[in-house]
Amino acid sequence: MDYRERALAAHREWNGKLEIVSKAAVKDRDALSIAYTPGVAEPCKEIAKDKNLAYTYTMKANTVAVVSDGSAVLGLGNIGPYAAMPVMEGKCALFKEFGGMNAVPICLDTQDTEEIIKAVTQIAPAFGGINLEDISAPRCFEIEERLKQQLDIPVFHDDQHGTAIVVLAGIINALKVTGKQKETCKVVVNGAGSAGIAITKLLLQYGFLHITMCDRDGILHKDCTNLNWMQKNMMEVTNLENQRGALADALKGADIFVGVSAPNLVSPKMASSMNKDAIIFAMANPTPEIMPTDAKAAGVKVVGTGRSDFPNQINNVVAFPGIFKGALEGRATKITEEMKLAAAKAIAGLVSDTELNEDFIMPEAFDPRVAEAVCSAVKAHIQI
Amino acid sequence: MDYRERALAAHREWNGKLEIVSKAAVKDRDALSIAYTPGVAEPCKEIAKDKNLAYTYTMKANTVAVVSDGSAVLGLGNIGPYAAMPVMEGKCALFKEFGGMNAVPICLDTQDTEEIIKAVTQIAPAFGGINLEDISAPRCFEIEERLKQQLDIPVFHDDQHGTAIVVLAGIINALKVTGKQKETCKVVVNGAGSAGIAITKLLLQYGFLHITMCDRDGILHKDCTNLNWMQKNMMEVTNLENQRGALADALKGADIFVGVSAPNLVSPKMASSMNKDAIIFAMANPTPEIMPTDAKAAGVKVVGTGRSDFPNQINNVVAFPGIFKGALEGRATKITEEMKLAAAKAIAGLVSDTELNEDFIMPEAFDPRVAEAVCSAVKAHIQI
Repeated sequence: MDYRERALAAHREWNGKLEIVSKAAVKDRDALSIAYTPGVAEPCKEIAKDKNLAYTYTMKANTVAVVSDGSAVLGLGNIGPYAAMPVMEGKCALFKEFGGMNAVPICLDTQDTEEIIKAVTQIAPAFGGINLEDISAPRCFEIEERLKQQLDIPVFHDDQHGTAIVVLAGIINALKVTGKQKETCKVVVNGAGSAGIAITKLLLQYGFLHITMCDRDGILHKDCTNLNWMQKNMMEVTNLENQRGALADALKGADIFVGVSAPNLVSPKMASSMNKDAIIFAMANPTPEIMPTDAKAAGVKVVGTGRSDFPNQINNVVAFPGIFKGALEGRATKITEEMKLAAAKAIAGLVSDTELNEDFIMPEAFDPRVAEAVCSAVKAHIQI
Repeated sequence: MDYRERALAAHREWNGKLEIVSKAAVKDRDALSIAYTPGVAEPCKEIAKDKNLAYTYTMKANTVAVVSDGSAVLGLGNIGPYAAMPVMEGKCALFKEFGGMNAVPICLDTQDTEEIIKAVTQIAPAFGGINLEDISAPRCFEIEERLKQQLDIPVFHDDQHGTAIVVLAGIINALKVTGKQKETCKVVVNGAGSAGIAITKLLLQYGFLHITMCDRDGILHKDCTNLNWMQKNMMEVTNLENQRGALADALKGADIFVGVSAPNLVSPKMASSMNKDAIIFAMANPTPEIMPTDAKAAGVKVVGTGRSDFPNQINNVVAFPGIFKGALEGRATKITEEMKLAAAKAIAGLVSDTELNEDFIMPEAFDPRVAEAVCSAVKAHIQI
């Protein structure tokens, strides 16, 4: 059976990757009278007196909504809420398997920014956090920002911040391997959508000073006429030399390339034009911007991809379960920049100095220490 | 530990009565690549081509949303969406325990009719059915009706139709015990909210001809000035003699009393004024409209209540899990009157002629045959 058939057959057999089970075994009348009427009225009355007791008596304490409108699903584009469901179910499965968290897939039958904000606000009471997923840019920026303002629970667009956190974690360790300094590194981020912008922001936050963003038209600069409002904002803090040109021009002499773009955009020649001991994170899926063997042959020192069949997999799954676990356990109302930076450092820190080398900069996705380390780091940075 | 403390302690320990688990064990890279990227893209692409394949590849096939706005929770009234959560979680637990169905609690942070309709419409893609719960009348009628028009999945307000189905099931068997005929029975329904109105409608549908509705002001008639629009509609099909007076007047010579109202509203004297071999379903919770011993002493033949500690418990849990199971398995787009009638007959039919007596008219809530019988009856009445 080929790969495609295996995936379809597995999904047919699961007929939904999630199951909702009762912790309260309702096997006799006494159990029924405690879990349901009349006993259930008691926690209801307590919560009616103090809304915060929802965290004591309900699943709000440990449950995240994974919300999408299906507008930017994987590399498939705008396939809508029905077709987005397998991804959201998969994400919820990862929340449980990697972080022990409950997560519920919510696929919204609207792609209107205001309607999405309203719908998420209205379903919020049952949930302890909102994981936004696969919502297209630049709408995702406004949706997340407005929801953060309106809700008293953490809201986190994983395509942005989860990706940014794992990229930063990888870069922290790649700097160690190459002996480069963040203050002097020249960084090129290719792809100016939700992930590329969030990566750029977090790298700036971490202390990188020289970042250039590119998209399919080349280097983004102040005089570009087709930038969205968020890309325009980014022109205040990136490409400060106002460089013009193609991706190939940006890469000349660059120390770090981060690709969240499309297959094969970086040629061996472009890779070899980078600075000595260059770092490339080529995360286009499934085919990276440059294959690791080609990058290595061109003299690049550290290469990461999104794939599990190459060294240095840059995978969100090491971030989001622990992020939400920490935020919910610590009853954070927001996921802050400090928490993201702490999470990235915690992930990077799981690779010991003796293990660390150019082909081992990231902990394994299945390393059971990961979610706990991220959770602890996040909790330690909650400001009450 | 007293009852209240037991309920609170159990809810504290559960910290949410539901758990969301993954059917797809994601324990290694191969499993991850099938359940999540890149394999998950395959079912996504299939559903993008044909929306109906959501029933094949996602949990839409077997998952119900239990939706409330917290406006009419148990006997507690308008306690809001946070305090409603323990009840909705309990309901979801019953869906799993009694019907093997997945159910997700959704508590909406709005009590505006239009906003509720919109929010439920928008979250519908992930779900195979919508169970409305504890939404106050008369808003619940419009919300349910509009959602039935807008959505292509079953929408069912359990406080109305679940209650009506179990009451009809009990009455079918009570008629057998008493030898009464539906066409000649005089029925009094006390309580003119969502449950009372739905019970009245289903009894009319079944073939009862003489039904009088009462509320706290007495008999409802055409000239009442404080009726809501649904109660006004009911005046076209009930109390056709345009009787006036108190509940006591309505009960004189009545064959059947159905109470979905408040404790102790029916005195022994009122009960004894009913027709010979009278039937009383006194479902006020936890204290019924009349205690069974008092009703029996007053000459009533069959007495049912909502309580598990008296004979003849009239409990929704014998209806809703099987109703949704049947509707989803049969891919029904609506739950029709025919399906409700079939469900009631199926429940009644589980009490064999040899078992049937005045103290045994309903199958036990924990009888494992119940959900299957209801499911089969519903499926048999799906019109494609």
